[in-house]
Amino acid sequence: MGSSENAIGGGRTAAVDKDVDFANYFCTYAFLFHQKEMLSDRVRMDAYYNAIFENKHHFNGKAVLDVGTGSGILAIWSAQAGARKVYAVEATKMSEHARALVKANNLEHVVEVIEGSMEDVTLPEKVDVIISEWMGYFLLRESMFDSVICARDRWLKPTGAMYPSHARMWFAPIRTGMGERKLGDYQSAMDDWYNFVDDTKTYYGVDMSVLTNPFSEEQKKYYLQTSLWNHLHPHQVIGTAAIIKDIDCLTASVSDIEEVRSKFSLSITMENTKLCGFGGWFDVHFRGRSEDPAAQEIILTTAPSIDYSTHWGQQVFLLDPPIRVSEGDNLNASFLMTRSKENHRLMEVELGYEIQQQSGKLLAPFKNKYYIE
Amino acid sequence: MGSSENAIGGGRTAAVDKDVDFANYFCTYAFLFHQKEMLSDRVRMDAYYNAIFENKHHFNGKAVLDVGTGSGILAIWSAQAGARKVYAVEATKMSEHARALVKANNLEHVVEVIEGSMEDVTLPEKVDVIISEWMGYFLLRESMFDSVICARDRWLKPTGAMYPSHARMWFAPIRTGMGERKLGDYQSAMDDWYNFVDDTKTYYGVDMSVLTNPFSEEQKKYYLQTSLWNHLHPHQVIGTAAIIKDIDCLTASVSDIEEVRSKFSLSITMENTKLCGFGGWFDVHFRGRSEDPAAQEIILTTAPSIDYSTHWGQQVFLLDPPIRVSEGDNLNASFLMTRSKENHRLMEVELGYEIQQQSGKLLAPFKNKYYIE
Repeated sequence: MGSSENAIGGGRTAAVDKDVDFANYFCTYAFLFHQKEMLSDRVRMDAYYNAIFENKHHFNGKAVLDVGTGSGILAIWSAQAGARKVYAVEATKMSEHARALVKANNLEHVVEVIEGSMEDVTLPEKVDVIISEWMGYFLLRESMFDSVICARDRWLKPTGAMYPSHARMWFAPIRTGMGERKLGDYQSAMDDWYNFVDDTKTYYGVDMSVLTNPFSEEQKKYYLQTSLWNHLHPHQVIGTAAIIKDIDCLTASVSDIEEVRSKFSLSITMENTKLCGFGGWFDVHFRGRSEDPAAQEIILTTAPSIDYSTHWGQQVFLLDPPIRVSEGDNLNASFLMTRSKENHRLMEVELGYEIQQQSGKLLAPFKNKYYIE
Repeated sequence: MGSSENAIGGGRTAAVDKDVDFANYFCTYAFLFHQKEMLSDRVRMDAYYNAIFENKHHFNGKAVLDVGTGSGILAIWSAQAGARKVYAVEATKMSEHARALVKANNLEHVVEVIEGSMEDVTLPEKVDVIISEWMGYFLLRESMFDSVICARDRWLKPTGAMYPSHARMWFAPIRTGMGERKLGDYQSAMDDWYNFVDDTKTYYGVDMSVLTNPFSEEQKKYYLQTSLWNHLHPHQVIGTAAIIKDIDCLTASVSDIEEVRSKFSLSITMENTKLCGFGGWFDVHFRGRSEDPAAQEIILTTAPSIDYSTHWGQQVFLLDPPIRVSEGDNLNASFLMTRSKENHRLMEVELGYEIQQQSGKLLAPFKNKYYIE
């Protein structure tokens, strides 16, 4: 127990203890209930289904690697689209269910399920396609793309294609009632704290007031500084959305994605409203490769939508207090997302911004810290 | 990262990886919110407060060890009761808050906060009293008493006292509506599953039916076989309660508590009711040692109560389906609780029972498996 290893071949990533990684991360994926949730996301399923079956020329007679196969769905579709051989790698005991599913769908002569982590397994050949559904909340939470990069560098032929081929992160100003609710929750927690301090002094002779600041910081972080999962309605987006990261899955390295650093400008497009925070989401594209493009380019987007929401939702970063803004106001922002030192699969965000009103007046700049947990 | 060590000095416990243990267990205790929840439990606080201040002769001028000091409360009370020196050991960064609290209450000349695990730290002397609040749900969940045993074997003087001195586990037949709700939840999950299997076949050409059994097992375990936290009302206890474990904290070894094995009989005391399951709880006693007893014996009980409920609640083990029973019926039961192989801080329970009706008629025996997660 407890052997250390580098998550990726590059030297820059700190060693990740495999058992800690399992306790913190992988274990959720061993549950069928969780797999079913993802398999019930029709937008996700449709995108991958169409990406494969509208582009059979990429799969027919080819060798395919499915990174993090879970229940085995992408591997099974790849085989049904005519693949000669599919290697379906899964780190958890879900691999046993994947194996049963492959067999029950009469594909065990094509799909080989391998239990292990992508960093450890050995394949008998290089592959023509690497397919994977690796995206976490706001794209990079979970840092699973590291494992896809490892797979690509070890097992993709020089002529091979990545499914998806590209990924982008988006960021937009929003209005929301969540901030008011979370502020209320924080204030209730503090009201309760002060009563608790009184009682503990009165009944138990211990003065807890020295812990008021740390408690307040802890609660503020929990209620106001931790990004929230939400299904945003398109009407909540009050300005232009900016692309803050653009990834070519064929060429990106781990150091390219360890940090997301962007300077950008947004315009407010809604008259007389409140900037309550920001929404973050992503999209991925299935374009094939430039020398061998997809016949049908498919896009899977997680943007705010009425009819096409996904299990990813969007990530909401709250402003406390909200700021009055109006149509034509501009926002100049700097965004920096890095990995948490305690857990490389979680993120920290530093967001700096200043508002330039339509009149030209510049408001005082802000700088906020957030945690994606 | 990832060094292994034996949790306890004895050879029988498997090595526990410290970083895995932190990811799985310790990390919750690093939050002030969680400490506050325990500090707000008036029954818990009163019991320890009275145990100390009604028995100052055990503390006055003595050396004390507080195992798992958290915020430092027991260490502070021990010092206020006159201790010469208190060693307050805490595995998480909560130790920093404990240190601040000790200082703010002017006790830094008496209380020394040490960050580290009990298995690793070295004290400059042996102690007269070991005090600790180590009890988890149903007493032994979290297996923290292992660390108290380690502390006792290393640091308690031959004449020393344990606070608490004794602990007991109780088990009683109950009626509850939870079983019906959980059965409904399970059935909804299965209804939803069958629709999911149909849709996946129809729209995506993959037959998921081979996963129906594993999914059903997983959901059954989650809804019906995992013990539930609840505040039971005394009227829900429909028969006599049995003591299934009795621990002398001065002499118990880890092998004594690794398994809880008991054969016992219960009587139904309620006329014409349903046996819906069993409730488990515990109590601890502060009796001092026989050669140097407490002046005032204090009991902390977590039995079902209207006015004196605690944050521990009780653990509920459901029967599906419930069984009609009546006053005078007897239950002969065998109980076996062992530690989970994957995580020594979680438990598995095998419960066998047979009902002998008042008429003398013996009903078919049952055997159920449960998980304390």
